Amino acid sequence: MAKDKKTPRPRAETPKGFRDYFGTDVTERTEMLHRIAGVYHRYGFDALESSAVETVEALGKFLPDVDRPNEGVFAWQEADDGDRGDWLALRYDLTAPLARVYAQHRNDLPTPYRRYAMGPVWRNEKPGPGRFRQFYQCDADTVGTASVAADAEICAMLADCLEAVGIARGDYLIRVNNRKVLNGVLEAMGVSDPAVQADVLRTIDKFDKVGEAGVRELLGKGRLDASGAYIDGVGLSDAQAEPVIAFLTSKGETAAETLDNLRSAVGSAPVGAEGVDELSQIADLLAAGGYGPDRIVIDPSVVRGLGYYTGPVFEAELTFEILDEKGRKRQFGSVAGGGRYDDLVARFTGQKVPAVGVSIGVDRLLAALREKGRMGGDATGPVVVTVMDRDRMADYQAMVAELRAAGIRAEVYLGNPKNFGNQLKYADKRNAPAAVIEGADEKARGVVQVKDLALGKKIAESASLEEWKEHEAQAEIPRAELVQHIQKLLAGEV
Amino acid sequence: MAKDKKTPRPRAETPKGFRDYFGTDVTERTEMLHRIAGVYHRYGFDALESSAVETVEALGKFLPDVDRPNEGVFAWQEADDGDRGDWLALRYDLTAPLARVYAQHRNDLPTPYRRYAMGPVWRNEKPGPGRFRQFYQCDADTVGTASVAADAEICAMLADCLEAVGIARGDYLIRVNNRKVLNGVLEAMGVSDPAVQADVLRTIDKFDKVGEAGVRELLGKGRLDASGAYIDGVGLSDAQAEPVIAFLTSKGETAAETLDNLRSAVGSAPVGAEGVDELSQIADLLAAGGYGPDRIVIDPSVVRGLGYYTGPVFEAELTFEILDEKGRKRQFGSVAGGGRYDDLVARFTGQKVPAVGVSIGVDRLLAALREKGRMGGDATGPVVVTVMDRDRMADYQAMVAELRAAGIRAEVYLGNPKNFGNQLKYADKRNAPAAVIEGADEKARGVVQVKDLALGKKIAESASLEEWKEHEAQAEIPRAELVQHIQKLLAGEV
Repeated sequence: MAKDKKTPRPRAETPKGFRDYFGTDVTERTEMLHRIAGVYHRYGFDALESSAVETVEALGKFLPDVDRPNEGVFAWQEADDGDRGDWLALRYDLTAPLARVYAQHRNDLPTPYRRYAMGPVWRNEKPGPGRFRQFYQCDADTVGTASVAADAEICAMLADCLEAVGIARGDYLIRVNNRKVLNGVLEAMGVSDPAVQADVLRTIDKFDKVGEAGVRELLGKGRLDASGAYIDGVGLSDAQAEPVIAFLTSKGETAAETLDNLRSAVGSAPVGAEGVDELSQIADLLAAGGYGPDRIVIDPSVVRGLGYYTGPVFEAELTFEILDEKGRKRQFGSVAGGGRYDDLVARFTGQKVPAVGVSIGVDRLLAALREKGRMGGDATGPVVVTVMDRDRMADYQAMVAELRAAGIRAEVYLGNPKNFGNQLKYADKRNAPAAVIEGADEKARGVVQVKDLALGKKIAESASLEEWKEHEAQAEIPRAELVQHIQKLLAGEV
Repeated sequence: MAKDKKTPRPRAETPKGFRDYFGTDVTERTEMLHRIAGVYHRYGFDALESSAVETVEALGKFLPDVDRPNEGVFAWQEADDGDRGDWLALRYDLTAPLARVYAQHRNDLPTPYRRYAMGPVWRNEKPGPGRFRQFYQCDADTVGTASVAADAEICAMLADCLEAVGIARGDYLIRVNNRKVLNGVLEAMGVSDPAVQADVLRTIDKFDKVGEAGVRELLGKGRLDASGAYIDGVGLSDAQAEPVIAFLTSKGETAAETLDNLRSAVGSAPVGAEGVDELSQIADLLAAGGYGPDRIVIDPSVVRGLGYYTGPVFEAELTFEILDEKGRKRQFGSVAGGGRYDDLVARFTGQKVPAVGVSIGVDRLLAALREKGRMGGDATGPVVVTVMDRDRMADYQAMVAELRAAGIRAEVYLGNPKNFGNQLKYADKRNAPAAVIEGADEKARGVVQVKDLALGKKIAESASLEEWKEHEAQAEIPRAELVQHIQKLLAGEV
């Protein structure tokens, strides 16, 4: 502190890769998460908010075998009574903390334990355009049951969530696949070498991009890609590759047809048959709940996450089209995904605990809602009561108090009131729908002026001189009718 | 990873001083903050969610003049391309980030800028009972205006917030004081030595505990405290001490009387007179908005924060009584506080920017609402549909889908259904209001059994044998009337 005078001023900047959210950025996300939480709750899921900070040991993926174990996470070592303490870190997702919480509290939690969680997570990665080091996740998981009814339930819940936030039926599709079917396919191919299996998985992941013919080439001798580079193939024979192709292209007109195709793709492999049976049960359960193929379908072309999950996997896609940066039409695409995973808690307890979960991409879904114009209803600013006479601040406060009591967002201008133009500029910056003016003259006559700023803006943007003259974006009304007039103005009735 | 087999299992524990929040812990807080945000919004305040991570430089209080600048904050050094990068830290409050945001974005923000923020903050302090290293804050601040109308507005808003979350009028009181009046008192005392001023401030802070006589002693020669220790006094004469005593005891029957008393306490000191005038204006503005002394009062005995703030200070107290740990009645006490501070942004820009803000103690207010029984309405668990026949899972899924469509929280039991007793135990653990049972017999007859678990619990707790026999906590109803029956049951009508 003695050096205060020499200390240069600090830079007013967020750390690299972090950002601030203003106004509707915050409230629209809050509103969306509020609606999703409502659906989760109705399905019997309980809220969980674990601490943002975990021990590196509990997070697991990033063991402290180097001095600073902060690859991928933000981590630091506790100063514990002068001694070096535990390494702590910010959570990088909501699943690792769920594992820790379940292991810690499993005797007090119901079995199965349905929980949802929403909140920020942190990644210590190189930031890029649109890629931030703090972002929201929104998860729901069922821990402690192997029943596919839990998987079906989460798919149904996901559909309900999308509709609850404003995605219309027909604008989304939840596609369900099963890792076990793929395991059956690998068995049917006679591929048991884990390295080759990994190669096959990687190839399957490229199906979306290179299509059936491309996958055939990549599973066989290899492929010349668009850049002219030659990509080595996995080296399987055509016959060996056939079950993968059959798997990837097994989508039929109906669930029954798809399931039949899958049954032939997996042949006699027991794990494959088990996988197809599970998909069949999921389809039945969903049908019983009224979730038909207009909302949820069995679709073996879902490949994302097949490497990670152990059973059913699912993905929610928004099917409406948007224009990309280059003005080309494309489907909006994936906004949520999940599946079954079984080694969540074993790290802590040694016991395998079956679990299934879903994660909704908060930023993606929010972007989709904005795209569809389902957000932004509350983006209008407050009614601004201007200050014509600094000594009559109490009068202006009384006006906003009346407006607020009627549920109308309102504020008194609290900057320097000398320059009236600045007050209107301020109202404009606040996106105010109206400004209220009460000078000494108005006060004496018991009236106020109300400027319809929204209308004024519209006229300024598009009106011809004649229209401009015809419209009156300012009205003089009795002071006693202020609230009533503003209500009408906001409803578009004046 | 090669050492995996030797790695001991990680401990499933939160780091010391951190905790997890389950179920209603989360949802009740969310609901409370949602209501507060609604009031803030109506007053024209905009949401701001700044990043949880700031540079240590921007946070300011904790400059990196030692190797690990993590006294009080959780901090770490960025590994920046192999080089040592910036020190980063978790925010310790919401005000320091506001300063950084305002300095960074001041050209784009309206002036004045009204913003609210709610979220977790982190303190690297020794944890203790009920004292955690991560907790919520909920702030509203107006930056860029010196007008006391901004102070009055925040006091009114605080009153509205308390009522919006469920604190009835009469159960709270917002007390307003002014640091400038105290400065006037110090001037009137002839105390200009900053060290003596600090001593006087410390003494004033003890007014709540030691009362008028104690303060007199402590300002003079000193005082024997309850433990028998002698506390040295400030060493002022009785005449010098008089203005402080007059200040602390100036609360009158009405605001006018209090203000008169304060005017004599500050004597001819100009800053004191200015402070009294400001309080007078605040009282007038609040009265104009309908906020009378039943809700907000001028009260010079508010001393908390006087050392920190530069102008008006205020504190919200809940006036109803609760029983403390020892069963003694005491007032619930303070749940929010704030005031005017003027050097928020100067660190970054060199320019003083006037600001006023309030911070609501989230955990304290939530505890108060629970104390008053204003929370907990949604603590009932889901209706649990039991599984009598594992093969008819689709039937049970259809039931919960119907219940959910009617807005009723419901779930199918997804554990191992073999032992029916376990299913009822589960329903009990979930705090389910009802369990639904449909075995093969019921299915054939088109009926279901509904067990009223809430009623069953009540009977088990308090009923005599006769009452027990009279009551029927289980009903057989037609399957088609399931939703209707559960609705009645939840409404207490069956």
